[in-house]
Amino acid sequence: MPSAEEIVTRMFEKDAFSQWLGIERLAVKEGYCLLKLRVREDMLNGFGIAHGGITYSLADSALAFASNSKGRQAVSIETSISHIQKTKAGDCIVAEAKELERNQKLAHYEVRLYDEATKHTVALFKGIVYLSSKNWD
Amino acid sequence: MPSAEEIVTRMFEKDAFSQWLGIERLAVKEGYCLLKLRVREDMLNGFGIAHGGITYSLADSALAFASNSKGRQAVSIETSISHIQKTKAGDCIVAEAKELERNQKLAHYEVRLYDEATKHTVALFKGIVYLSSKNWD
Amino acid sequence: MPSAEEIVTRMFEKDAFSQWLGIERLAVKEGYCLLKLRVREDMLNGFGIAHGGITYSLADSALAFASNSKGRQAVSIETSISHIQKTKAGDCIVAEAKELERNQKLAHYEVRLYDEATKHTVALFKGIVYLSSKNWD
Amino acid sequence: MPSAEEIVTRMFEKDAFSQWLGIERLAVKEGYCLLKLRVREDMLNGFGIAHGGITYSLADSALAFASNSKGRQAVSIETSISHIQKTKAGDCIVAEAKELERNQKLAHYEVRLYDEATKHTVALFKGIVYLSSKNWD
Repeated sequence: MPSAEEIVTRMFEKDAFSQWLGIERLAVKEGYCLLKLRVREDMLNGFGIAHGGITYSLADSALAFASNSKGRQAVSIETSISHIQKTKAGDCIVAEAKELERNQKLAHYEVRLYDEATKHTVALFKGIVYLSSKNWD
Repeated sequence: MPSAEEIVTRMFEKDAFSQWLGIERLAVKEGYCLLKLRVREDMLNGFGIAHGGITYSLADSALAFASNSKGRQAVSIETSISHIQKTKAGDCIVAEAKELERNQKLAHYEVRLYDEATKHTVALFKGIVYLSSKNWD
Repeated sequence: MPSAEEIVTRMFEKDAFSQWLGIERLAVKEGYCLLKLRVREDMLNGFGIAHGGITYSLADSALAFASNSKGRQAVSIETSISHIQKTKAGDCIVAEAKELERNQKLAHYEVRLYDEATKHTVALFKGIVYLSSKNWD
Repeated sequence: MPSAEEIVTRMFEKDAFSQWLGIERLAVKEGYCLLKLRVREDMLNGFGIAHGGITYSLADSALAFASNSKGRQAVSIETSISHIQKTKAGDCIVAEAKELERNQKLAHYEVRLYDEATKHTVALFKGIVYLSSKNWD
């Protein structure tokens, strides 16, 4: 079976949208991952702050990488995100995904997103994935 | 006070990320909006399907437009999305945002996302916005 | 296979907590149910209004009855509730559960709770159930 | 201003439903609380396990006590709960509520519920409260 890092590298190389987002992998372990994104001008909404979809997308990539890294293919079924603090162009956001629980069918993750410079929480994300019977090979 | 359509046009013109997504406005009314997005290759994830962040971003734009269209400036505080069906490059997704409730401080919206061709539900989104004391003028 | 009404009657007869709540079944169909509860003094919290757990419990019973009524045994995995309006002793709350989506493994429901007298929304509930391989017989 | 413990004692003494649930206060601090509940026969559902409303109610009381304990009156607006493990009559469930974030208008809490004997997670709860302008006095 491939290692956590091999699985995530393989996922990331085909993940066109995570690449467009400029996502950087800071750390990957089984059931865990730490990602980083620098907010750009083309990620802003009509209020001149990062679109809610940018922070969500970063968290959702973190969920996908962390939950697949244990070897079983996993698909996100339900997620929620609380938007806590605005971010603007130039800000760097770090997302830390941790596994809370895993049984035969489902796994639960939380992802905390924070500003790299100030460490202040930007958003709180919670996700549930369905564990398919298919393994990464 | 500007009309619902004037507010959303003004928001959209400055919304760089919604423009990158290629979002089309099909209909805008007070507390309501109907948007469309065509999934492109650069929106796919490592499984070759639309990244969860794409459907979320479409729903979040729909929430922002619908909730601001009544004149008070609104900020998303909590959202959740259930991913129901995968979409691939070339698929067109429609998002319909409707207001469920509004009081002095908060408003609740639901957004249903469906495949334009098959009408099958792609995702179900729920969002709460905080209504600021600032009006669109 | 038993009918929707037979399944729900069987569930309800063993459901000690739904009985303590005084839940009344107004209508039961496949994937649908309409319940009613009268708020009592012993259901109030420290603010003299119905405890959030009362409205949640009513919605959760509605989810269980509606999702099991189609014949497959179903277990709630993730639910959320937005509390919109306070209720006090003597108020009657109606909960209407509807199926939004169902595939082989999961089904999605929404439950709207409203005041029977004023029809005003009391809470909005969303739930996902896991469909086991076991049928009601 | 009253202390965290004084506020929670005052809330608890008027909270008829938390008393019916047999909730015990193990610890109370500003923005924090630890509660315990023993599952009884009259808390079970039609499957012979604790009704989802019981674990939710315990978590919701923990949210109310923790969020009010800092002096400003707080009202729950949005909560979600993931049901992870079944509990049966006789099991003791502990709920630990922690504040994640607080600004002028809103505060975010998480509540982990676990089996006192096995320490296994029973449910994961997330809640947002609206902070009113009214203080406890």
